[in-house]
Amino acid sequence: MSLPPAPSSEPSSPLTVLSALRPDIRAMQGYVPGEQRNNPNVLKLNTNENPYPPSPRVFEAIRETLTAEKLRKYPPPLGDNFRHTAARIFQLEPDWFLIGNGSDDLLTILTRAFVPAGGYLAAPMPGYLLYRTLAEIQGARFVPVPFTTDWQLPDPWPAPHAHLTFLANPNSPSGTVVQPQAIRRLAETLAPAPLVLDEAYADFADWNGLALLPHLPNLIITRSLSKSYSLAGIRFGFAIARPELIRELIKVKDSYNCDVLSLAAASAALEDREYFEQIRGRIRATRQRLTHALANLGFDVTPSHANFLWCRHRDRPAGTIAQELASRNILVRYMNYDGYDGLRISIGTDVEMDRLVETLELILQS
Amino acid sequence: MSLPPAPSSEPSSPLTVLSALRPDIRAMQGYVPGEQRNNPNVLKLNTNENPYPPSPRVFEAIRETLTAEKLRKYPPPLGDNFRHTAARIFQLEPDWFLIGNGSDDLLTILTRAFVPAGGYLAAPMPGYLLYRTLAEIQGARFVPVPFTTDWQLPDPWPAPHAHLTFLANPNSPSGTVVQPQAIRRLAETLAPAPLVLDEAYADFADWNGLALLPHLPNLIITRSLSKSYSLAGIRFGFAIARPELIRELIKVKDSYNCDVLSLAAASAALEDREYFEQIRGRIRATRQRLTHALANLGFDVTPSHANFLWCRHRDRPAGTIAQELASRNILVRYMNYDGYDGLRISIGTDVEMDRLVETLELILQS
Repeated sequence: MSLPPAPSSEPSSPLTVLSALRPDIRAMQGYVPGEQRNNPNVLKLNTNENPYPPSPRVFEAIRETLTAEKLRKYPPPLGDNFRHTAARIFQLEPDWFLIGNGSDDLLTILTRAFVPAGGYLAAPMPGYLLYRTLAEIQGARFVPVPFTTDWQLPDPWPAPHAHLTFLANPNSPSGTVVQPQAIRRLAETLAPAPLVLDEAYADFADWNGLALLPHLPNLIITRSLSKSYSLAGIRFGFAIARPELIRELIKVKDSYNCDVLSLAAASAALEDREYFEQIRGRIRATRQRLTHALANLGFDVTPSHANFLWCRHRDRPAGTIAQELASRNILVRYMNYDGYDGLRISIGTDVEMDRLVETLELILQS
Repeated sequence: MSLPPAPSSEPSSPLTVLSALRPDIRAMQGYVPGEQRNNPNVLKLNTNENPYPPSPRVFEAIRETLTAEKLRKYPPPLGDNFRHTAARIFQLEPDWFLIGNGSDDLLTILTRAFVPAGGYLAAPMPGYLLYRTLAEIQGARFVPVPFTTDWQLPDPWPAPHAHLTFLANPNSPSGTVVQPQAIRRLAETLAPAPLVLDEAYADFADWNGLALLPHLPNLIITRSLSKSYSLAGIRFGFAIARPELIRELIKVKDSYNCDVLSLAAASAALEDREYFEQIRGRIRATRQRLTHALANLGFDVTPSHANFLWCRHRDRPAGTIAQELASRNILVRYMNYDGYDGLRISIGTDVEMDRLVETLELILQS
């Protein structure tokens, strides 16, 4: 054993354990998740939860797994059953899949695997704010790349040397998508560094990046069961990439990052294609209906490929509308990106959207 | 946005995405969890699972939480209900508690919060091998501090300047404990840097570090529900530390790191003190019984304060015994620390321990 030298941090006064934290951690704000309220009268349209229940098969699967034997033993570290189910459905081999405790777990694993301290993590912005947080925790620099005014990627891409690049597709908060050609071009520009296609919302879009995977060795796709499978409560996501890369990522994940009940629920949810298609269809239909309704109320609505809408009213400040809605027990997400602000509204049921539209009418009349 | 410079890594041939991984990750072995076999004939004594079922209240709590509303919505990010339960039971305020997806999640959070790339993470060894893995993932150096021959801490402590120090108490694989006085001395030596008391096995010991917490501002305790609450399958652990530190650690954790079912299970398990005491008592009684039985078979058994025994036979190599047991469907953990090896055997039920002892008798007679 070699003795480490004294660390360089000066003693502060009072010398508390807080002074021993990494300065990056002290300095950062931390990601702020959307507000949760347990009041059943509150209509929650702020965190893109699915308004419909999970597949009935999910409940069955959890009940079947609810045995003393399953609870008292460690879960399978790689989620073998889930990987086989996913392989069958996505027509890839099981070793292309990495399980995660929500897709945030996978974004964390990818950041830790590719981005050194002092390195660069890039993502188009306005986008998912967690990307910046992940860079900060890693002691890396976040490189925000502004979208073009119509939410496309700038060409040429200005951050070709980032150690890791996240592209949420569909993007949040805009709900917009980038086309396959642009993704292919970006992946080729970044190679050998990875492009992570964060497809948390891809099930609500017209296409996804799966077909690109075999052609782009540095492409990694992440998925979530929180939105399109109505399972935000059980925390499950997965990544898809070449097996030789998955093997390296396994070194970085916690040994047992997914629990037995979540694993069972995830497999069952994925199996039930009919239910999945039905819910997906409903959300997409309601999205179209709400887009028109909000436009009629004077909102500029960005055409969405996700389970939410990004909109700004022509006359009223977005922040004020969000507050007025909250005071009437409707939560939407007010987002402000350095002065460019707007409302991100999750797609609920048709009944819920009627309540939203009626409430907005009242607010806008006053 | 400022453009990052080109990274320093030379292009390799072929230029695959693997070359873009952090060199630390490529170089590391990765932590290898104990073998899992689903065969019901296999007696699993290799990962310190509890042989008894979880409290009946755990099943009730999960069933009550198994609703569409709970599954489709994000869980409470900080686990408010759990924190209140824990606060009541451990007689501290709720903001002293941080929830984790297993105690490994907490060890990861602590490493990321305190250890910079190139920094130092220390722990006494032979000990939990994950500590070294955590240092490697973080790009930090692991400083193994050899225990004294009777499993106590060396005095003076040779790594006073580590950014973070883990002390598993009871220790694995030895099952031994370090006394409060030694912990206090170590914490004072390390201050302001933190000492993490990894108490995954503390419920099986005669004492724990809770009483030290108010006196040692740089002391952090981590706990697991995997062992003493028979809940390895649901992944739940928690950390206890001063609120001002917990607030900083919250920045580093994933927003929703614990799912609704695990949170409900964890609160219910903690509530049922009577059941907990009963299981704890049984494990301790069986531990004493097995210690004598193994000694009678010619093993040197280290007196244990955990739910496993560390032992080495006087005549037979530990590795051979482990293989012989495995071929008879009994899994124990063979561990080898640079030539110092032995068997770590989880405490099962009395019936299971009888089967183990009878099988060992057969093996040792041959």
